[in-house]
Amino acid sequence: MHKLPLRIYYEDTDAQGIVYHSKYLNFFERARAECLREIGYRQEELLKEDIAFVVKKQEIEYFSPAKLDDEIVIKTILSSSKNVSFTFSQSANLKNDEKQVLCKGQVYCGCISLKRNAPAKIPEELRVKMKFLVQNND
Amino acid sequence: MHKLPLRIYYEDTDAQGIVYHSKYLNFFERARAECLREIGYRQEELLKEDIAFVVKKQEIEYFSPAKLDDEIVIKTILSSSKNVSFTFSQSANLKNDEKQVLCKGQVYCGCISLKRNAPAKIPEELRVKMKFLVQNND
Amino acid sequence: MHKLPLRIYYEDTDAQGIVYHSKYLNFFERARAECLREIGYRQEELLKEDIAFVVKKQEIEYFSPAKLDDEIVIKTILSSSKNVSFTFSQSANLKNDEKQVLCKGQVYCGCISLKRNAPAKIPEELRVKMKFLVQNND
Amino acid sequence: MHKLPLRIYYEDTDAQGIVYHSKYLNFFERARAECLREIGYRQEELLKEDIAFVVKKQEIEYFSPAKLDDEIVIKTILSSSKNVSFTFSQSANLKNDEKQVLCKGQVYCGCISLKRNAPAKIPEELRVKMKFLVQNND
Repeated sequence: MHKLPLRIYYEDTDAQGIVYHSKYLNFFERARAECLREIGYRQEELLKEDIAFVVKKQEIEYFSPAKLDDEIVIKTILSSSKNVSFTFSQSANLKNDEKQVLCKGQVYCGCISLKRNAPAKIPEELRVKMKFLVQNND
Repeated sequence: MHKLPLRIYYEDTDAQGIVYHSKYLNFFERARAECLREIGYRQEELLKEDIAFVVKKQEIEYFSPAKLDDEIVIKTILSSSKNVSFTFSQSANLKNDEKQVLCKGQVYCGCISLKRNAPAKIPEELRVKMKFLVQNND
Repeated sequence: MHKLPLRIYYEDTDAQGIVYHSKYLNFFERARAECLREIGYRQEELLKEDIAFVVKKQEIEYFSPAKLDDEIVIKTILSSSKNVSFTFSQSANLKNDEKQVLCKGQVYCGCISLKRNAPAKIPEELRVKMKFLVQNND
Repeated sequence: MHKLPLRIYYEDTDAQGIVYHSKYLNFFERARAECLREIGYRQEELLKEDIAFVVKKQEIEYFSPAKLDDEIVIKTILSSSKNVSFTFSQSANLKNDEKQVLCKGQVYCGCISLKRNAPAKIPEELRVKMKFLVQNND
């Protein structure tokens, strides 16, 4: 399991005094980027080769709101990985009470060629590491 | 069915040259606000009475990306409405080709007291109008 | 003078209950895009030719905050325009009381080649129209 | 001098392939929050006492763009501090080449009562520490 600690700033909150709902999906993406960076994912370089990872579908359920100044932890598990698609299970938790789940979600991703707007194979080396990661999710 | 036309600006896009995935959930919220405003929803006034509508769960599926300068239309249907919860079916479509669905989603909302962080009844007048809206979704 | 009406949504606000400071700079950009679109500016097409308008410097002063549900108007004047640079004077005002200035700013822009990351001439046809606009700012 | 390291994610970029201009002002605010947190600034607690720090004016000049995956550092100096106002000098730099200034700005802030929308004295203890910080800016 990958863990990304984050702080809540004013920009993340809204007039309800809590984190704006879609912001957690941004936090989830930051965490996916860091999780995959650890096994060699280089977004900027892949973009130059016309390869991009995109979100195909996402579901998120909210349990408790984070507030300004809160420290939270995004937990990320790569739960499945195939040739052109992969899925993450993610959650946001309070740092000081990790059992306190703020929200959790499933994010279904795909690898595409941006120019063709069509599925593309995940580059070999990364694909192998992603499959290994799925089998070693602790 | 409520329709909200929107233009795509640089702030909505990312380095993939397309609209960033979570932005559609912001667009959906703008559309829900406008849809409910038409039947008397006053967010700012309700906030003063400690009543807020929040997202409890949302699912979104992406089919085709919007790009810079695109004109899109957010279509919103209030599909169910109870005493403390309600659900929307929403989609984003290209304005010039409304059959082109960019993404569609389900958004499950609740009415809460922010101070108590607990469910609260939707104010009577609004609740009646929301139920009427569910039954007259054309 | 170009006027762009906007509504304030939850995504624009923060935990202070007011619009987050940098959001006005997003609003200003939306207004510049619409102002220039009227004279033939096509951002997406220019991008394909490696031409982009970028902000070189901006100054913004805040007088009064906008709140959730407020209707505001962004007023935009193209105050100067040269071969590779141009400047806007912009403000945000309450729609129902346009004398109420929420904030105002100066935005200094440049035309660049993204690949070369170097100044580029504004395309001829647009440049002529921008100079005309500077001289006819009512 | 306070330093806050940050990573650039997709959400920070736009269709030009670079960080969207107003995002740096969000980064600057994150850095101000962390800089002041070190001397006891508790935004969420102050909000409960109706005390908020707000931006009154900001100027930012852009020199070179950050891109996806870049690691940057926000450098923050509290350059002056009075009873109800204070000013920061801030910049964004590439982490691997800190002499490479991406942008720099001046941010003029004030302490206000949100309810009265009027200037308020910075709480005593924080005010003293802020003045000390101004005199010890290394």
